[in-house]
Amino acid sequence: MELVTLAHGSGGDESCKLINDLFLSYFNNEILYKQNDASLVEPIDGKLAITTDSFVINPLFFPGGDIGKLSVCGTINDLSVSGAKPLYITAGFIIEEGFNMCPLEKIVYSMAKVAKLARVKIIAGDTKVVEKGKCDGVYINTTGIGVIEHYELTHTLQEGDQIIVSGSLGDHGACIMSKREMLGFNSLLKSDCAPLHEITEAILSISCNVRIMRDPTRGGLAASLNEIISNTSKSMMVYEKKLPIKEEVKSFCDLLGLDPLSVANEGKLICIVSKEDSVKVLKTIQNHPLGQDAQIIGEIINDSSNKVYLKTLLGATKMLSMPSGELLPRIC
Amino acid sequence: MELVTLAHGSGGDESCKLINDLFLSYFNNEILYKQNDASLVEPIDGKLAITTDSFVINPLFFPGGDIGKLSVCGTINDLSVSGAKPLYITAGFIIEEGFNMCPLEKIVYSMAKVAKLARVKIIAGDTKVVEKGKCDGVYINTTGIGVIEHYELTHTLQEGDQIIVSGSLGDHGACIMSKREMLGFNSLLKSDCAPLHEITEAILSISCNVRIMRDPTRGGLAASLNEIISNTSKSMMVYEKKLPIKEEVKSFCDLLGLDPLSVANEGKLICIVSKEDSVKVLKTIQNHPLGQDAQIIGEIINDSSNKVYLKTLLGATKMLSMPSGELLPRIC
Repeated sequence: MELVTLAHGSGGDESCKLINDLFLSYFNNEILYKQNDASLVEPIDGKLAITTDSFVINPLFFPGGDIGKLSVCGTINDLSVSGAKPLYITAGFIIEEGFNMCPLEKIVYSMAKVAKLARVKIIAGDTKVVEKGKCDGVYINTTGIGVIEHYELTHTLQEGDQIIVSGSLGDHGACIMSKREMLGFNSLLKSDCAPLHEITEAILSISCNVRIMRDPTRGGLAASLNEIISNTSKSMMVYEKKLPIKEEVKSFCDLLGLDPLSVANEGKLICIVSKEDSVKVLKTIQNHPLGQDAQIIGEIINDSSNKVYLKTLLGATKMLSMPSGELLPRIC
Repeated sequence: MELVTLAHGSGGDESCKLINDLFLSYFNNEILYKQNDASLVEPIDGKLAITTDSFVINPLFFPGGDIGKLSVCGTINDLSVSGAKPLYITAGFIIEEGFNMCPLEKIVYSMAKVAKLARVKIIAGDTKVVEKGKCDGVYINTTGIGVIEHYELTHTLQEGDQIIVSGSLGDHGACIMSKREMLGFNSLLKSDCAPLHEITEAILSISCNVRIMRDPTRGGLAASLNEIISNTSKSMMVYEKKLPIKEEVKSFCDLLGLDPLSVANEGKLICIVSKEDSVKVLKTIQNHPLGQDAQIIGEIINDSSNKVYLKTLLGATKMLSMPSGELLPRIC
C-alpha cells in the first residue's frame, strides 16, 4: 500500500510523479496541464466573484460525501449564492506524512466528479506534505472564480421581503457529529453536501428581485440570518412551524442538546426575494431535485434593531441569536 | 495572553470577532469589508493568471521574514514570473488551537505590509481552527489573480537563448535549515523572501523576447531548470563559475552535504531571454535593489535530450538532475 512521504511534497522528482499520476490524471484539462507557476485563462466578460475556503473536516469520509466533494461543492456554492456562475477552482492540499494513496485518490476522484458535473475547471493546484502528527490526514483549500452573468444582488432588504430556504436544515452537521462521535444509532443521518449552481442559476433567470443569497454552512441558519441582518436597518421574523427539519435530525439534536438552526448545512441556500416574486422563486427551487423541501420560512420586518426573531410553535416570539462558543468544530 | 480557540473557527460570534478585529483591520479594503460568501471585483481587461500555494513553513518566523510575508510574496512571485501583474490575493488560515494571538497578529501584519507594497488587495479570507496537535501553529493558503498586461510568454526556447538568475542562490533554504536545526553558528544566513513584481514588470517593459520566467522555490534552481527543459526539444548548459552563491550559503551547504542548486529561493527569478536582449535584461535586473547580483548563468543548446548540463569550475561537464528524495521539507 503506497503511502505519502515528505518527498511527495518537496518539489523534486516524487512531487512531479504525484502531480502527474494523480492530480493531472483526474483534474485533466489543458490549462492545468501546462503546469506553469500560474495558470492563464481567457479574458472573462463581467464582474468576477472570488472566494476561498479551507476544509479540515473530520472525518474525511461521511455518509453523503467526503472532504473532496465538500471542498468543491463548498466553493461552487459560495460563488453561486453570490449570483456568479462558477468557472475555475484552485486546489491546495496539505497532506500528513504516511497518509494512504488510496483514500487520497478517492478524494481527488470526488473533486473531479463534482467539478465536471458543475462544468468547473480545476486549473491550479499545490501539494504540501507535513510530518506525521502535524495535520489530520488531509486538509484542502479551494479558491473559486466565477462571473456575474445575470445581475448583481443588491443586498438591500425591504419590509415584506420573503426568506426562503431550499430544504431541510442541519443535515450535514448532524451527520458529521453522529459519525465522529460514533453515535451509530442513527443511520438515517446523511450530509446534504451538494452543488447549488443549478438552483441559483434557475432563480436568477426568473426573478430580478433577489436581494441576497447565502449558504448556511458553519453556524447554520442562525449564523447566516444574523450576518445578513447585522448591517441593515431591518429585522427578520422566522416562523418555526415553517422550518423544514428532518425528524432524524430533530431527534438527534434533541438528544445532544443542539439547536438544528445552528448546525451546518452544505447543500442548502437561503434566498431573500421580493414578496411579489417569492412564490415563483419558491416553485422554481422546489422543481429542482435538491430543492423539493424548500419553504418560505419568514420575512423582513420594519424593526431597526437588526434582530432575528423566531415565532415559536406555541406562538411566543424569541430571539434567534448568533451562535457562540464551541459549536461543532471541523464541520467543514 | 489571548489564545486561539476552536470557537474562533466555528462560524459563530468568536469567528466574527477574530475577522473584524484582526483580518479586516489589517487587510482593510472595501471589497473584503463587504464580507459576502464571495467577493466581487470589477471586470478585468485581459487574460487572467491564477495561482495557488499553501505555506507550511517551519519555523514560522525566520531571519528575513515569516510565514505571512512568505505567503504573500510566494503568490505575487508566481503571478509575476508568469508575466502577470498581481491584482488580488485570497488568504485561507488553518490555525492550531492554543496558538497565541500575538504572533498571529504579527503574521497578518506582515501579509498586509507586503500586499500594500505590491498594491495587491487581499479580498477574501477563511479561518479554520483545528485541535491542538492537528496542525503546527498556522498554515496559510494564498491564491492569486493577476492580469497579463504586456505579452504572453511563449515558453518556446531557441538555441542561444540566455539563462539569467536575478541573484544569489539557496539563501532561503539554507536560512530555514539553519534556523530549524538550531545551527546557530552561521548568523549571516538570511532568507531572500521578497516580492519580484517590480523586476518582472521592468523586464517585460524593455524586452519582447522573454521566453519564460520561473521562481526557483522548492527544489531550487535544479528543479526549475529541469521542469523548464522537460517538455522541449532542447537542453541547457549552465556554467558553474557564473552561479551567484553567497560564501555563507556555500559553506553551510558544504557542511551539511547539500547542493545549493537544489535549495529553495523565495526572492529570485530565472529569466530565459533571446541572446540579443540578454544584456539589456540583465542590466535592468541589476538596476533593481533585489537584482544587484544577477548573472547570465547559461544558455539553451541544441541537444534534444532535455537535459540540464553543468560545466564545472574544473571544466568537466556533468548533469544537473531533478532533485529527488527528501529535500528540505516544509521550506515554504
